[in-house]
Amino acid sequence: MGFARVNEVDSVDLVRRALSEDIGAGDVTSEATVPEGARARAVIVQKADGVVFGVDVALLAFSLVDEGVVVEERGVEGRWRDAGAVVLAVAGDARALLAAERTALNFLGRLSGVATSTARAVAAVEGTGARVLDTRKTTPGLRMLEKAAVAAGGGVNYRIGLYDAVLIKENHIAVAGGIAAAVAAARERAPGLPLEVEVRDSAEIDEALAAGAPLLLLDNMSVAELSAAVAQVGGRAELEASGGVTLETLRAVAGTGVDFVSMGALTHSAPALDLSLQLELLA
Amino acid sequence: MGFARVNEVDSVDLVRRALSEDIGAGDVTSEATVPEGARARAVIVQKADGVVFGVDVALLAFSLVDEGVVVEERGVEGRWRDAGAVVLAVAGDARALLAAERTALNFLGRLSGVATSTARAVAAVEGTGARVLDTRKTTPGLRMLEKAAVAAGGGVNYRIGLYDAVLIKENHIAVAGGIAAAVAAARERAPGLPLEVEVRDSAEIDEALAAGAPLLLLDNMSVAELSAAVAQVGGRAELEASGGVTLETLRAVAGTGVDFVSMGALTHSAPALDLSLQLELLA
Amino acid sequence: MGFARVNEVDSVDLVRRALSEDIGAGDVTSEATVPEGARARAVIVQKADGVVFGVDVALLAFSLVDEGVVVEERGVEGRWRDAGAVVLAVAGDARALLAAERTALNFLGRLSGVATSTARAVAAVEGTGARVLDTRKTTPGLRMLEKAAVAAGGGVNYRIGLYDAVLIKENHIAVAGGIAAAVAAARERAPGLPLEVEVRDSAEIDEALAAGAPLLLLDNMSVAELSAAVAQVGGRAELEASGGVTLETLRAVAGTGVDFVSMGALTHSAPALDLSLQLELLA
Amino acid sequence: MGFARVNEVDSVDLVRRALSEDIGAGDVTSEATVPEGARARAVIVQKADGVVFGVDVALLAFSLVDEGVVVEERGVEGRWRDAGAVVLAVAGDARALLAAERTALNFLGRLSGVATSTARAVAAVEGTGARVLDTRKTTPGLRMLEKAAVAAGGGVNYRIGLYDAVLIKENHIAVAGGIAAAVAAARERAPGLPLEVEVRDSAEIDEALAAGAPLLLLDNMSVAELSAAVAQVGGRAELEASGGVTLETLRAVAGTGVDFVSMGALTHSAPALDLSLQLELLA
Amino acid sequence: MGFARVNEVDSVDLVRRALSEDIGAGDVTSEATVPEGARARAVIVQKADGVVFGVDVALLAFSLVDEGVVVEERGVEGRWRDAGAVVLAVAGDARALLAAERTALNFLGRLSGVATSTARAVAAVEGTGARVLDTRKTTPGLRMLEKAAVAAGGGVNYRIGLYDAVLIKENHIAVAGGIAAAVAAARERAPGLPLEVEVRDSAEIDEALAAGAPLLLLDNMSVAELSAAVAQVGGRAELEASGGVTLETLRAVAGTGVDFVSMGALTHSAPALDLSLQLELLA
Amino acid sequence: MGFARVNEVDSVDLVRRALSEDIGAGDVTSEATVPEGARARAVIVQKADGVVFGVDVALLAFSLVDEGVVVEERGVEGRWRDAGAVVLAVAGDARALLAAERTALNFLGRLSGVATSTARAVAAVEGTGARVLDTRKTTPGLRMLEKAAVAAGGGVNYRIGLYDAVLIKENHIAVAGGIAAAVAAARERAPGLPLEVEVRDSAEIDEALAAGAPLLLLDNMSVAELSAAVAQVGGRAELEASGGVTLETLRAVAGTGVDFVSMGALTHSAPALDLSLQLELLA
Repeated sequence: MGFARVNEVDSVDLVRRALSEDIGAGDVTSEATVPEGARARAVIVQKADGVVFGVDVALLAFSLVDEGVVVEERGVEGRWRDAGAVVLAVAGDARALLAAERTALNFLGRLSGVATSTARAVAAVEGTGARVLDTRKTTPGLRMLEKAAVAAGGGVNYRIGLYDAVLIKENHIAVAGGIAAAVAAARERAPGLPLEVEVRDSAEIDEALAAGAPLLLLDNMSVAELSAAVAQVGGRAELEASGGVTLETLRAVAGTGVDFVSMGALTHSAPALDLSLQLELLA
Repeated sequence: MGFARVNEVDSVDLVRRALSEDIGAGDVTSEATVPEGARARAVIVQKADGVVFGVDVALLAFSLVDEGVVVEERGVEGRWRDAGAVVLAVAGDARALLAAERTALNFLGRLSGVATSTARAVAAVEGTGARVLDTRKTTPGLRMLEKAAVAAGGGVNYRIGLYDAVLIKENHIAVAGGIAAAVAAARERAPGLPLEVEVRDSAEIDEALAAGAPLLLLDNMSVAELSAAVAQVGGRAELEASGGVTLETLRAVAGTGVDFVSMGALTHSAPALDLSLQLELLA
Repeated sequence: MGFARVNEVDSVDLVRRALSEDIGAGDVTSEATVPEGARARAVIVQKADGVVFGVDVALLAFSLVDEGVVVEERGVEGRWRDAGAVVLAVAGDARALLAAERTALNFLGRLSGVATSTARAVAAVEGTGARVLDTRKTTPGLRMLEKAAVAAGGGVNYRIGLYDAVLIKENHIAVAGGIAAAVAAARERAPGLPLEVEVRDSAEIDEALAAGAPLLLLDNMSVAELSAAVAQVGGRAELEASGGVTLETLRAVAGTGVDFVSMGALTHSAPALDLSLQLELLA
Repeated sequence: MGFARVNEVDSVDLVRRALSEDIGAGDVTSEATVPEGARARAVIVQKADGVVFGVDVALLAFSLVDEGVVVEERGVEGRWRDAGAVVLAVAGDARALLAAERTALNFLGRLSGVATSTARAVAAVEGTGARVLDTRKTTPGLRMLEKAAVAAGGGVNYRIGLYDAVLIKENHIAVAGGIAAAVAAARERAPGLPLEVEVRDSAEIDEALAAGAPLLLLDNMSVAELSAAVAQVGGRAELEASGGVTLETLRAVAGTGVDFVSMGALTHSAPALDLSLQLELLA
Repeated sequence: MGFARVNEVDSVDLVRRALSEDIGAGDVTSEATVPEGARARAVIVQKADGVVFGVDVALLAFSLVDEGVVVEERGVEGRWRDAGAVVLAVAGDARALLAAERTALNFLGRLSGVATSTARAVAAVEGTGARVLDTRKTTPGLRMLEKAAVAAGGGVNYRIGLYDAVLIKENHIAVAGGIAAAVAAARERAPGLPLEVEVRDSAEIDEALAAGAPLLLLDNMSVAELSAAVAQVGGRAELEASGGVTLETLRAVAGTGVDFVSMGALTHSAPALDLSLQLELLA
Repeated sequence: MGFARVNEVDSVDLVRRALSEDIGAGDVTSEATVPEGARARAVIVQKADGVVFGVDVALLAFSLVDEGVVVEERGVEGRWRDAGAVVLAVAGDARALLAAERTALNFLGRLSGVATSTARAVAAVEGTGARVLDTRKTTPGLRMLEKAAVAAGGGVNYRIGLYDAVLIKENHIAVAGGIAAAVAAARERAPGLPLEVEVRDSAEIDEALAAGAPLLLLDNMSVAELSAAVAQVGGRAELEASGGVTLETLRAVAGTGVDFVSMGALTHSAPALDLSLQLELLA
């Protein structure tokens, strides 16, 4: 993917550090048992159904320890596939492949886990008109990759950090002296940025609409409350529901008519996708 | 903890990068709405039962943006506590606390999730004599912290990387020409390191014992197979069971008499511990 | 400023590298001539009228070589002041102040130059309703600081990088097969982000409006063309004028009724603000 | 240039960081509108007369996002050329070229601006025997590149930092107890380094000559004062004039017979050279 | 060596920093005198007998400044060879080879010095049954490379850092309340790690054996004391002798029957191996 | 030393990396045996006569793991002292002091070894008028610190890298077409830098003098050849002797009347100074 190629600029550093923490002084087992110069093929396969993401990063792990590594097959990313699908097949120096194996799998497992969780959530909202948003609840150091994994799973990337969108919460409103004041201050400070206001009840919804907020955050509301909010707003602003939404409750939430449902669990609690790597020594 | 103080040398870099990816050009919302110089108190509380780990790292996140931050209360780490327990309470510059909030919570949530998953596993094996081991299936870049979280949850840290222990697997045995040859080569190359051999059946167990392997890896065996292996070995070596062990299957596996059960899920699939941060502005 | 305190996380690294490239093996002149332990006061003063920005960064330069440095006076940032105004006065180890002097001034001079250029531009558009935008034409490595300097000078920060806003230009339109298709693709890929479309003539303005673009870029148009575009759009979208605007031509451009005028020169061609540092040895 | 090839060791890091701050999570616009795998040609052309410098660094920006980028044409650096001259033409992945475009231009614009300013200054002193020196007033983080740009423009690189030459100024003299003492101390501390002494009047010139200083700094002197100093020194030492010299006053200063004129403005206030990049999609 | 290929991940960073500190703003001499584009061959040869190590790192130094460098000959590492043996012959850009020459030689000289010192020590113990261990007394920043050099010289790598083995010394014993308590605490905290106990006399040997310590450290003992300890232990644990052992005293120490002799001097005081680099310009 | 304080900017990074490679996942032994919060005093003492250097760096190692560490005594650096002299005494957290002990000693031992070797060389040339120079044959990554150690031992720092002085060697002369041409090219390219020319015989000395070279390098000449060269030059240039000079041959070389003798062995082959650290637990 062109996107991932571009991202390589930052990924190289991440992968280097990951390789370094795993390999350290060297892979003593392989050095002792695998002859120098031996060649091998490594094939990574899905052991569970899901959406793979991170093939470029995994490949980077192999190519950083063996720049002559050859890609024999590359699986499709960003699409739901069944267990057994090939994710990546490479051939290269046997010691190098063994040295990078765990790093490649750790990246792939985590990122594919995020993509797969997202894909399940996206499937759950199908037909409701709502879209699934990610959050800033990402693994420290991996935000960009995890957000790319969310996109690969069909989710929508919300703000990347504190700097690229305004999200006015309860505390900000209290300090600023009300929603109108807070929105005005934010429009003055950051006229070019997306803006969202957290609202807790019907009165605040009116205040936020009056202040011209294009997007309202409905945090920790029941389905009934969400439905009421949707009705009250009547399309005058977009609505995001958030707060402890799980795959089980997601469809009901999405069915209220909100435009977005954000789920921290996409990134902070996604189980890794189960993958296997088969290594075959070449004559 | 003295341990964490020492670890700070590496953690500072990790936390800096995490803050940088979240804050970027600055927290536009707080800058617009929170007056310069305002003071606040932030209190992090468990929203779920579990074992907290990572308070030092969270505190580092706050102190890197406000070096004058004051610790008002610090919760106990490494012990099971109920929802509602205070994790950390700090007072400092309001804008700074808001800027570091998400980074602090992202570290704490993930590391406490690992500690909590480990604690559940440790509880499950109680009385069996088996101990719970971690693996190298950690989040890229966070291995040291996640291994510390496993220790905080009562688990045992297995090898840190490819360099500090010998683990002879199927492929190594095939290339080296048998278990005896592989063990001899590893003893020659790395005489000072712990050594483990993967065995697949009764014949290989005999071979590994004959080669003097002090620790055998039994991968993906059924409970019956594990019990048979325990009987066959009869204490002549330690035994580690691994391979897709879940919290549900763990106790049966541990009950076979193996010495160690390793679980990748402790680190690669632990859901984050649910935490909340309440921010209160000070007059 | 709370903002700058937060920014320190990244600035520390920038200032460290700048000190390192200047000091290298040490300040041989001061080591030879200034006694160890001597104390001094350094006072930085404006030699030209303008807006100062970067006092926190300058202070960081001093405190990284002498952590005990004492701030005796700090000038006001972000406000137009006459030559002679004090920018920063510190007292500390004489050798350390001499070692950091040039680094502190290099940051302050450049950032204050950007702030001052911006302030001149902001003054030029006063009363027109147009606002001054910055661009991505910043010094490599200093984008965040330069954008903060623009804000200090009264300008508006436009997108920080390629990732936090959509700007559909001629090439994108050509490849995507028209404005409507490009806008639709961008809305699908990045529903949460600000979106702007470059338009070259009246027909494209209609197309962009039909596609629902909230912001149109009018690049390299004459004042007459801009006025016509403003009339055609009639408030249905916001308008940005760009392309070789100078301080001389700025007011005429702003007077056409566009909402924003962006100027690369704010950052890529701002002359440094002239500053002096007086060093006084203390008995 | 061989020189630049060598410099690449440091430049790679600078360019990486610049790409990272611009691209961040990815170029959302191009991802949405430009098909994966599309090819393009990018041609950078001078829009103003001047001296180009930084082609290697610009090329690095492209090759770091697309290692298969092909150089089709490379302009001449370090020579005055008219608007319209081709600076660099490359072909490669369309998304990658778009992602690196601004970073490449930001480096090229700034470095060529420095080279062009220097070339203008060098032209202004032609025939006077004086040479144009740069200073330490460079952009933080870019010193080496900016000094190379000065050299490309025909200027002479003066000391790189505080460590590779002795420059005894007023403060050092005061503390050391006179010029003779300061020179002696510096010769003792750093026998191998170039040495220069700042002098303020005729008496100090005599003192410095007596102390054997090979180079004298005449700071902020009028043309008349400079001429008098040249006459007094009579070739017994080299002379550098500095202090607020502009392109307008430069020739008069150089005409006094000094050997060097140093100008901070070469680096701290050089406007960027105006460049354009045309991108053409390949079938 | 496959091992070194793997290590490249970390070595690249080390070599980059070393090149950067030597080349800085560029090799002024070669730039002035060697024409751009000139080609050359560089041949590194041993000027003294010894064991070479570090050819991969040296090659990295050349390839980082000229990625097209061609390896014409590579000497054998890890084997004793006489003065005159070729270490590495490369052809490439003349300026680049000159720029990297000193960095390549500095790495090679130091690492080969360590390998050679180790080889001398290994020869000295031949036939005694004892093996030569390294220590943590390595050059800051170069531990992994120096440990690899020790292995190349035939020595055995002992623990890499404080984290991968337990070594209970006098102070730990005092604080823990005796050897038994210290060993028990360590077994509990780090069940999977190698464990060694320092013993000072016959009573402590008994205590350590009773506590089940598999390896005892005999620090600063005379040959007679060592022999007595060997007799007392009678094979119930392995023994390491340490403390100021030199090449002169080594054989006597090894002859006492201990299993290991550790020598800090292998890394902290090894003289560099004398090497020469001949550069030949190619027509 | 003020100098070292300034140098801290770079040293922090070096010390951090050194601590990181030694401590890694933590000091398992101390964690198991030393109670959290225990206090201790560490006293570093010379075990051999010599010149200490690096106390600031050692202190940095302690303070990076325990920012509250208290300095109780600091030995004198840069002066010859007998075995038994105190180098540094600190009090702090016991676990932290144990964690940093080896890193502190590794820096101190190496840098003091360099200072001590230099001091021996300086003593050997006393009265001859010659001065001892260092070279670029330093440990990769530690050049600045090792050059500071040479200065502390009384030696003179020669060029720091390839960029701050011109040294025209045989190869450069051959390519440039003679000494005169090489010197002229270098003066043109780098007018402000020190310049030295390597000469091999009497004819080349004449050429170099004619070209105005202020410093001549006499490499690998016998004492008789050196004396003849001194006589021939007759003070018209300074002279540096180099090439395999040892402490044994140094005085004879210096006695020929050359101005400088450079010795790579000062840095590449200096044995570490023997130091001990006593740790005492505080009640």
